[in-house]
Amino acid sequence: MTPDLIAARGEIAAHRTTASRLVDTCLEAASGEACRHAFIGRFDAMARAAATAVDAQHAAGAPLPPLAGLAVSVKALFDVQGQVTTAASIALADRHAATCDSPAVARLRAAGAALVGHTNMTEFAFSGVGINPHHGTPANPATHALDGLARIPGGSTSGGAVSVATGAAWAALGSDTGGSIRIPAALQGLVGFKNTARLVPTEGAIPLSTTLDTACAITRTVRDAIALHEVLAQRVVQRSGHALGAMRFGLPTTLMLDSLEPQVAAAFERATATLRHAGAHIEDIALPELGDLAAINATGGFSAAESWTWHRSLLATHEAQYDHRVAQRIRRGERMSAADYIDLLHARRDWIEQMQIAMRGFDALLSPTVPLVAPLIADLQASDDAFFDANGKLLRNPSVVNMLDGCALSLPCHRAGEMPVGLMVWGPALSDDTVLDASLAIESALAAMRS
Amino acid sequence: MTPDLIAARGEIAAHRTTASRLVDTCLEAASGEACRHAFIGRFDAMARAAATAVDAQHAAGAPLPPLAGLAVSVKALFDVQGQVTTAASIALADRHAATCDSPAVARLRAAGAALVGHTNMTEFAFSGVGINPHHGTPANPATHALDGLARIPGGSTSGGAVSVATGAAWAALGSDTGGSIRIPAALQGLVGFKNTARLVPTEGAIPLSTTLDTACAITRTVRDAIALHEVLAQRVVQRSGHALGAMRFGLPTTLMLDSLEPQVAAAFERATATLRHAGAHIEDIALPELGDLAAINATGGFSAAESWTWHRSLLATHEAQYDHRVAQRIRRGERMSAADYIDLLHARRDWIEQMQIAMRGFDALLSPTVPLVAPLIADLQASDDAFFDANGKLLRNPSVVNMLDGCALSLPCHRAGEMPVGLMVWGPALSDDTVLDASLAIESALAAMRS
Repeated sequence: MTPDLIAARGEIAAHRTTASRLVDTCLEAASGEACRHAFIGRFDAMARAAATAVDAQHAAGAPLPPLAGLAVSVKALFDVQGQVTTAASIALADRHAATCDSPAVARLRAAGAALVGHTNMTEFAFSGVGINPHHGTPANPATHALDGLARIPGGSTSGGAVSVATGAAWAALGSDTGGSIRIPAALQGLVGFKNTARLVPTEGAIPLSTTLDTACAITRTVRDAIALHEVLAQRVVQRSGHALGAMRFGLPTTLMLDSLEPQVAAAFERATATLRHAGAHIEDIALPELGDLAAINATGGFSAAESWTWHRSLLATHEAQYDHRVAQRIRRGERMSAADYIDLLHARRDWIEQMQIAMRGFDALLSPTVPLVAPLIADLQASDDAFFDANGKLLRNPSVVNMLDGCALSLPCHRAGEMPVGLMVWGPALSDDTVLDASLAIESALAAMRS
Repeated sequence: MTPDLIAARGEIAAHRTTASRLVDTCLEAASGEACRHAFIGRFDAMARAAATAVDAQHAAGAPLPPLAGLAVSVKALFDVQGQVTTAASIALADRHAATCDSPAVARLRAAGAALVGHTNMTEFAFSGVGINPHHGTPANPATHALDGLARIPGGSTSGGAVSVATGAAWAALGSDTGGSIRIPAALQGLVGFKNTARLVPTEGAIPLSTTLDTACAITRTVRDAIALHEVLAQRVVQRSGHALGAMRFGLPTTLMLDSLEPQVAAAFERATATLRHAGAHIEDIALPELGDLAAINATGGFSAAESWTWHRSLLATHEAQYDHRVAQRIRRGERMSAADYIDLLHARRDWIEQMQIAMRGFDALLSPTVPLVAPLIADLQASDDAFFDANGKLLRNPSVVNMLDGCALSLPCHRAGEMPVGLMVWGPALSDDTVLDASLAIESALAAMRS
């Protein structure tokens, strides 16, 4: 396993290396070919200064802060003081620099992170694919190592995931509205944790859906996901220490298993078999409520209505500068009436109630994060139909958890040498600690099978 | 002062009368000419049975419940098991009877109330005037005693207020979305307390605005308002016992004092002078934020959007049965977009924040509840212009507190022999106990002046 943030922190704590040395290595990686298009802004001097400050204080006997002066990247929709926040659009290029950090960024900084740069993303976070026509699309480093082709990184936190996969950062601050943390994590063999939305402030970030947005992180391991969550949510995760055999998982058969690509189906089945073998109780559940989501969202859904609300004045003056696929999806919100929106709020509330009842008795649910392995960038660039089809498939499973107001962690379940496949561990609102706990046990149980 | 519920309960506790005897007196009053059009459904047998049960248990040594078998009326939009809930419309006349009590009604019943009937109201609660073309409009009993003319009762809890003013009930369960408890209380010389909305469940009631609706009560005195609030909210009000001299009140000069009728201006000025004389600190504050509300609500406001959401299917089939003035106001919600609604949500949140900052340091604010004394029913029936003008003026001050998500109590401040005028004591969300506490002190300080 690639060393993770916790391991690197341990090395610094033991004085076997310094934060400054590790930041230099990350900044070098950020300039490498594998990281092409991953960053749209670099904060090298600021990152080095943060690492130096941690090293100096640590040398003077101060305790090492949680993030230990280590490199963390920031999705380009979060305000970083002194930087222009563009959400990887060009429509906002003439904006003023942010006058203060967004709370999520401020928490990372206070915990000793060395912020290495603003990462590329789907313009305004509006797709799960990760293609950006203005700044270029970073190729998926995990799949490139396998077949040498340029496959999508997944989005919208495309550059953030690439920064972690290439060693340019130990963790990436991103956002997840329908899967934007978990999709690139799954397609690149990383860990992505979407916490219950209310636990981390989303202020100071350009919104996609004010109802569904979550500020969270991509990491290399589950224990790093816990460390980042503890910093971002300013809370301590309660770990049960239960063995896998003490946990009961549901495996929903409605919607989540539809049209799986063979590689995904094989990896997911092998993973669940491995977990069962390790003692986990996994039961199929129909969860027919999942079949109701299409009807609930038929009038447009939250992202369309809420992004149209934010973008309508900007679109009026700058539409020509938008990716037309993004503008097209935002404009779906234009036709939505207040009554349809209010009905959606009520339908979501009722649906969450039904789901919570149906999920009782399970510690967490298990699903493939996405039904696909990463498609080729060129195929999706060439055709709107192919793009929207892939996008719909990528968002389908992860977005269930945003509608649920729940939490979910995607971790890799493929074997070395295979295309990355993500396993999603998910649960209702505020079951974050249970999901993280279960994910730790699952990651450990899958380790031998994966290597 | 007319005896109040607390006084009546004391008589029962002291065995000087019985709940049954008092309920009979109330039911007789409910059948009197002054109560004409106040009820659209009577629950006489159920009310008598409740009183008898309380008497029997009390005689057997059980403690007297808070509402002591006393008569309480229920606005016709609350579900009462076995009764049809019509909100005083005729469009819902063929509905099934409610299969269970709404939570507010259930709490009244559990506290020993004798529910005497469903009271008349503005159809679907959609005006502050109180005119109902289907069931007739109850005349204002307080003003009728002065000039013999048929003046509006105020709405939308028109019949509820009349039931309390005429002795048909000790208290009236109603709802307040923009003043529907406080307006009839002010125009009829009663007390109306609108608590912070979240404190009392609104389930089982036909909604007007799911954002602004509040379930609360009209009473004869402030101490009765406290008793009813404690039952409806299932909580205990914390009283400071502070004297008036220890309280600091703000008197907002923006909007709330505009176009006062001379009788209202005179009574309000005399009341504040009396309070100052009794030691209260009252300071003018500009509170210019009040001037922003018109712009915030320019696209229609919550009631239009949310009532259209509820009514659109019913209007499609039954519009001919609606009061055209009500249908006209609901239809304003049809044109509202999801984006306008979302902007309204955000604008309200920001406005509440600004208001809370501006109100800091004051125990409560003081305003005239409404700028008018009760107009003649015939004048408002004759002209849509006169109706909508009066309605806008009646809602103007009380609706500020619903937008604020705050709480407010209206208590009488006119002198005997004058047209009723209400003084509104109000504050931000969850300042209910402070507002009730201040209202007790104010009621007491005004008593000598008013008699």
